[in-house]
Amino acid sequence: MKLRIYNAKILTPHGIINGELRTDGDRIVYLSPVSTLDWQDWDREIDLGGNLLAPSFKNAHTHSAMTFLRSRAEDMPLKDWLYKQVFPAEAKLTDEDCYYFTRLAVAEYYSGGTTYCSEMYGHTEAVAQAFADTGFGSFIGSGIFDFDGGYDDITKRAEELKCKIDKLPRQRYALAMHAQYTCGEQTLRAVSDLSEKFSLPVTTHLSETQEEVESCKEKYGLSPVKLLAEKGIFDLGGTGYHCVHLDDEDIKILKNCRVGAVTCPCSNLKLASGIAPLKKLLDAGITLGVGTDGAASNNALDMFRETYLATVLQKYLENDAVAVSAKDIYRAATDGKAFGLENADGLYIGALADMVVIDLDAPNMQPLNDIESNLVYAGGRQNVIMTISGGKVVYEKGEYLYGEDYGALLEKCNAAAERIKNEI
Amino acid sequence: MKLRIYNAKILTPHGIINGELRTDGDRIVYLSPVSTLDWQDWDREIDLGGNLLAPSFKNAHTHSAMTFLRSRAEDMPLKDWLYKQVFPAEAKLTDEDCYYFTRLAVAEYYSGGTTYCSEMYGHTEAVAQAFADTGFGSFIGSGIFDFDGGYDDITKRAEELKCKIDKLPRQRYALAMHAQYTCGEQTLRAVSDLSEKFSLPVTTHLSETQEEVESCKEKYGLSPVKLLAEKGIFDLGGTGYHCVHLDDEDIKILKNCRVGAVTCPCSNLKLASGIAPLKKLLDAGITLGVGTDGAASNNALDMFRETYLATVLQKYLENDAVAVSAKDIYRAATDGKAFGLENADGLYIGALADMVVIDLDAPNMQPLNDIESNLVYAGGRQNVIMTISGGKVVYEKGEYLYGEDYGALLEKCNAAAERIKNEI
Repeated sequence: MKLRIYNAKILTPHGIINGELRTDGDRIVYLSPVSTLDWQDWDREIDLGGNLLAPSFKNAHTHSAMTFLRSRAEDMPLKDWLYKQVFPAEAKLTDEDCYYFTRLAVAEYYSGGTTYCSEMYGHTEAVAQAFADTGFGSFIGSGIFDFDGGYDDITKRAEELKCKIDKLPRQRYALAMHAQYTCGEQTLRAVSDLSEKFSLPVTTHLSETQEEVESCKEKYGLSPVKLLAEKGIFDLGGTGYHCVHLDDEDIKILKNCRVGAVTCPCSNLKLASGIAPLKKLLDAGITLGVGTDGAASNNALDMFRETYLATVLQKYLENDAVAVSAKDIYRAATDGKAFGLENADGLYIGALADMVVIDLDAPNMQPLNDIESNLVYAGGRQNVIMTISGGKVVYEKGEYLYGEDYGALLEKCNAAAERIKNEI
Repeated sequence: MKLRIYNAKILTPHGIINGELRTDGDRIVYLSPVSTLDWQDWDREIDLGGNLLAPSFKNAHTHSAMTFLRSRAEDMPLKDWLYKQVFPAEAKLTDEDCYYFTRLAVAEYYSGGTTYCSEMYGHTEAVAQAFADTGFGSFIGSGIFDFDGGYDDITKRAEELKCKIDKLPRQRYALAMHAQYTCGEQTLRAVSDLSEKFSLPVTTHLSETQEEVESCKEKYGLSPVKLLAEKGIFDLGGTGYHCVHLDDEDIKILKNCRVGAVTCPCSNLKLASGIAPLKKLLDAGITLGVGTDGAASNNALDMFRETYLATVLQKYLENDAVAVSAKDIYRAATDGKAFGLENADGLYIGALADMVVIDLDAPNMQPLNDIESNLVYAGGRQNVIMTISGGKVVYEKGEYLYGEDYGALLEKCNAAAERIKNEI
């Protein structure tokens, strides 16, 4: 697939260029203010009419199939919600359920300008298959924990899963460990050994709640960050999801171990977990990512809302209207670096062709004082008029263009949600 | 104008009814699960195809014409922003500028499901005219302060303004006082006397920042709430915008004086002002409203974002995932009671025909576990497919249906924004 996109405002790492961008396969191959006529065998020419072409969002932490729990049980105490609603319902999920609920998530991602994610969930092959079938990109793992069995079970399962995932288009196996509080000594050793064996960094939930940090200190005499560093989990770097409750020493360790930090502000507020110290993380030079977490605790998969919140919450937390800049957070929300994605840090020749078209005529994007600030502070999913994933137009003005029978998908998802409700 | 809206899920104060709703003029005149055939002279029949008909948002605090400053100068210290950007730019605004920037705001309101607001701004007649010309409803005042002159100037100007505003369709004069920190003894007395004379409660910025509260205590030995109550400003009730920094005694006074409290969570975060104690206010029985504040400090006029944030920030503030319910905040964001609007507290016979149609098939609204929770926790402006203001369809699938030449409007707004930038 070759696209020619012209008459565009192109948001590059060096500012906005009025011009033309071309793709070949999943890469950007041309970007210039000038239209040359040396190459004309494009599959589609798209006149943007002066609208904005920007990098797509890269959702750095999510559990996509959890769309099945959206608005299932709201405004409940956290433990009742988890033990009476989430866990019993998850136990009833089948591979097929997860496949379709992930396709529902992809529809939401695409209509909101997201094309890649860092995913952790059970039924991992079904989830990865849904991503592959819709052209969505992911780094995906199961979230290894003690319930997976002993050292040998974990190792064998990870090897099999890696082999299968890595064969799927736009999917890459991620060595995802659920969290220190669900992983005993043996599991931690298995993950650490797998990291060395696969030459892969480890992604994990990390210091999400105060309670988690306190119970870890009680059990090990160490914070979760220190514990995992000591156990060799971060020997090859890694990614920490949430990173809400960190002390200065934790931050130093994350920096020294090259661990990226992913913030999920909506989920952290909704579950009353807290506000992550993004300014401190940025000041320490830690690579930042932005994620939605699953729809059960958010409840949208809306990277505009996350990006906005990540920015303004720091202003509140630091009592400083200048705490972090819109541009820094927008970069973190679009480059995927925190979970290891490469060549997605902006639109340039050689970069991944993962992009969105933003309707600059929408009232919330006017007047055009500062387009990047408009995106973060005023932008929303209603402004996304096209999404391009891996060089393919997957979403355009309300339509999904990858062969989705959307009506049938909704029927399947509602029937499954109803069945699960009745089974528990 | 008479509308027949059928095949709808109608969100009423008593839950969702599958059925039909009819309007005559600006009122709902029929609402039933059954379609009778006794009345057939409707101007338009609308088949909702099972989508949701819900009350529109009522924006309880805004400065609509401030769209001209959207993303004008971001990530700056508050004082630099105010004194070097906002005030000098506002000084260059003309009536005509304000008229068109308000029309731009209305386009944003309508496309996001808002049909009414509590407005405070200079160039008040031009702003009210823009609302009237677009069918948008408002309670509107200038924001009286010391710069308006002495007792007689203030009184005369208010009388003239009230007379003009009250003649405009869907506009009602509001006795709006800017804030205690911009109003000396004489101005406070003028406002208090006007309140008695007009039989109108007073709306005012109230306890927005810690600094405001501290400086008031230093000057008067009283908190802003106590000062204004003592000066008779709240003798007929009133509305306080922001209400971030309140002590228990302030909350008692607000309750006893029947003062509604309006929360603007996005603006309060972005300007690092703090988080309003909504749970305490609700527990005390105070009428709550939700507002966007102006686009200069937000930067969107997006009531979905405000409603979401108001809800989840309380969970964070109270460290309790159950702190306030989605339904309580949604009611506050749609009933307009905090600024005195009547008959807008839900869809029922006799209520104002101010409504939105929500696309329930959108991926973020699926599955249909709980429609009201979906609206607050997952909903967004992309879900609004129609807005009805005062019984008229004003917005439908991206089109403005009140005679707006939208392209020309954007040209006018951008030219004015550019001119003002060059003048300062």
